[in-house]
Amino acid sequence: MGAGANGPVVTERVGSVAILRLNRPERLNAFTEDVRAGMIAAFDDFDADDGVRAVVLTGTGRAFCAGADLARGGDTFRPESGEGDDGFPPDAGGQVALRIFRSTKPVIAAVNGPAAGVGVTMTLPADVRIGSDTAKFGFVFTRRGLVPEACSTWFLPRIVGISTAAEWALGGRMVTAAEALERGLLREVVPAERVVDRAIEVANEMITGTAPVSVALTRSLLWTMLGAPGPEVAHRAESEVLYGRGLAADVQEGVQAFLAKRAPEFTDRVSDLPLAVATMMSKSD
Amino acid sequence: MGAGANGPVVTERVGSVAILRLNRPERLNAFTEDVRAGMIAAFDDFDADDGVRAVVLTGTGRAFCAGADLARGGDTFRPESGEGDDGFPPDAGGQVALRIFRSTKPVIAAVNGPAAGVGVTMTLPADVRIGSDTAKFGFVFTRRGLVPEACSTWFLPRIVGISTAAEWALGGRMVTAAEALERGLLREVVPAERVVDRAIEVANEMITGTAPVSVALTRSLLWTMLGAPGPEVAHRAESEVLYGRGLAADVQEGVQAFLAKRAPEFTDRVSDLPLAVATMMSKSD
Amino acid sequence: MGAGANGPVVTERVGSVAILRLNRPERLNAFTEDVRAGMIAAFDDFDADDGVRAVVLTGTGRAFCAGADLARGGDTFRPESGEGDDGFPPDAGGQVALRIFRSTKPVIAAVNGPAAGVGVTMTLPADVRIGSDTAKFGFVFTRRGLVPEACSTWFLPRIVGISTAAEWALGGRMVTAAEALERGLLREVVPAERVVDRAIEVANEMITGTAPVSVALTRSLLWTMLGAPGPEVAHRAESEVLYGRGLAADVQEGVQAFLAKRAPEFTDRVSDLPLAVATMMSKSD
Repeated sequence: MGAGANGPVVTERVGSVAILRLNRPERLNAFTEDVRAGMIAAFDDFDADDGVRAVVLTGTGRAFCAGADLARGGDTFRPESGEGDDGFPPDAGGQVALRIFRSTKPVIAAVNGPAAGVGVTMTLPADVRIGSDTAKFGFVFTRRGLVPEACSTWFLPRIVGISTAAEWALGGRMVTAAEALERGLLREVVPAERVVDRAIEVANEMITGTAPVSVALTRSLLWTMLGAPGPEVAHRAESEVLYGRGLAADVQEGVQAFLAKRAPEFTDRVSDLPLAVATMMSKSD
Repeated sequence: MGAGANGPVVTERVGSVAILRLNRPERLNAFTEDVRAGMIAAFDDFDADDGVRAVVLTGTGRAFCAGADLARGGDTFRPESGEGDDGFPPDAGGQVALRIFRSTKPVIAAVNGPAAGVGVTMTLPADVRIGSDTAKFGFVFTRRGLVPEACSTWFLPRIVGISTAAEWALGGRMVTAAEALERGLLREVVPAERVVDRAIEVANEMITGTAPVSVALTRSLLWTMLGAPGPEVAHRAESEVLYGRGLAADVQEGVQAFLAKRAPEFTDRVSDLPLAVATMMSKSD
Repeated sequence: MGAGANGPVVTERVGSVAILRLNRPERLNAFTEDVRAGMIAAFDDFDADDGVRAVVLTGTGRAFCAGADLARGGDTFRPESGEGDDGFPPDAGGQVALRIFRSTKPVIAAVNGPAAGVGVTMTLPADVRIGSDTAKFGFVFTRRGLVPEACSTWFLPRIVGISTAAEWALGGRMVTAAEALERGLLREVVPAERVVDRAIEVANEMITGTAPVSVALTRSLLWTMLGAPGPEVAHRAESEVLYGRGLAADVQEGVQAFLAKRAPEFTDRVSDLPLAVATMMSKSD
């Protein structure tokens, strides 16, 4: 467990929704190695726990996340760890982003306040972003001599379009919640005190009356196919998944409940499904 | 011929526009094997007929298409046919979607009423969707224990963005025509009695004064390049197609008519062009 | 040098912003072989000159660019040059588009008036397009017996969505500045006399306080990843680039200046960086 009631990343549950909270308010939830490890461990736990149906990602205090912790000053981004398989260490933000990308549960970001650097890029693999009216967003990398990370050069143009992505990421200015809404980064903007509750509502709309395994497979298909070279790839993957679903209990229940006009009671479990999801995801590696 | 004046799929002509109508109003035009075969046969006919310049896809009665016919109840989605080359049967909706994707004529969906399941996903390879104000859209798959099909995991994020695609497809709620318009699924919303006429108008704007072969090749290029890994791929394909067009009668006529400020009379025929289109399309298989 | 004070392509400097002006006003800046060569030479110069931080692309007179020069009448598009390596000559518009795509400096198109054919498609690899209220846009190819070029079958659907791209490119009608704004082709519309000044302002927002090498690498990453098959590709590329940046002077300066609340003075130069950019770009070839 990388998360608990204390520490840099804390988790709680509201019904079937897990709340993952960046929890270094005295540092505006700045990103560290501990945060990285804690987030990945938390998502591993969520995937393994059939009681968790969705995840809300937010921050403690007035900020969402100020970006990388700059306690090391000018040396903050100097490589210190050993090299990875590629001859250079993997970007820590990218490891978190890929873990969220591969989540089997829907992820809603509740951006409760300012988000800069990895603080905003880590939210891009979330399915939906809800913003507080106090939120603002800074793709500040070029102002620090860096480049965008956390796979954001892939995610951002697919969310706000290449033109807005270029404008924001090349110039690095702070973007208001209103502009983020207009350009499609946010689904909606609500008062700060409402942002987590609203994210939980959106999460509950996704999980009420839906089959957990179907949700996991659909999330995986949608995000994976976002990079696929043509619809033929989706046709093959969907045909394979539908074949499996057609043999499963959930489909019988789903159709019978619909015809009987009653709420379905799905029994297939995400924790029984690592192979299918892993197989599909590995195709995009 | 899979279509005529009767049967589950009927066709008619309004000028150069072919109307393909899902025609099982007593079942809200629910999708069956006969519908699948009829739609594919109709698109084969349209492609072979130089008198057809565009296709409008709509439904008879108050619904567009209620999705898969559930007459078999809980067994509806249980695989019964032999396995395909991949070890599992191909998704029927995906076969229709790929056929529309490969149409050499522009396709306008006139969504005259509710569209659920394959009823909405089959419209995604259309170039434009016009909605009736009585239309609503349900990506209901996760509520039945299924996953989205008809290649929609590839098409939908490219039309409405990944965030809206995830919200709609994970949660499966019904989406109003107004929301579908706002999110970009629909080009416009008109009164129910106007939806087919408006689709014909939009189709006519595409085919009046344009060269049929140019339209076919442009449609193929746009949809194929939507999945291509970079502009260099388009550069090569466009250069090849432009070389062929540069030797053709249509370009002489197009430029001369423009300079003379008269309407062009194009003579090149789509039915003479199966090879080029087939070659380009096969590159994305 | 393909550009100077006279000729079909002229350049000037406003601070750190280079202005590239199509300069055949008596022909509505129609595109010729000289324009092609002049544009490519100008972008080569801009990339080699560390004094140039951004590029504004505009036209002399009332039009932006009327498209290919039709002085040869019906023979304009007949292939006359020798064949390229692929057995057919490369599309000239595509050569310009790829050169802009690979620019290491941000590119802002100031569309000062009507843009048709290659006149509009050449603007698609720009990061941002600002439109004059006198601008209009014609993807007129199918009306001339041609197909869209300049890699626009790849760029256009990624900027305005596949449905708008199909509508505009299949039908070929003229699109007003207002519609282009609504559909996302333009960032904003301003009076004709303001369009170049506004483009310079937008360019200056991108280059003030940002590190030139970071801007070049970010631009390259964003546009390259727009075609990448998944976030894992971005993760690897970003990790590699961040490793290099972490060893560079700019990051030390960027973080220290931020912590000291002073303006940074970046010293790394784009002209020292051909290898990294070339390597990254070659991956998408």
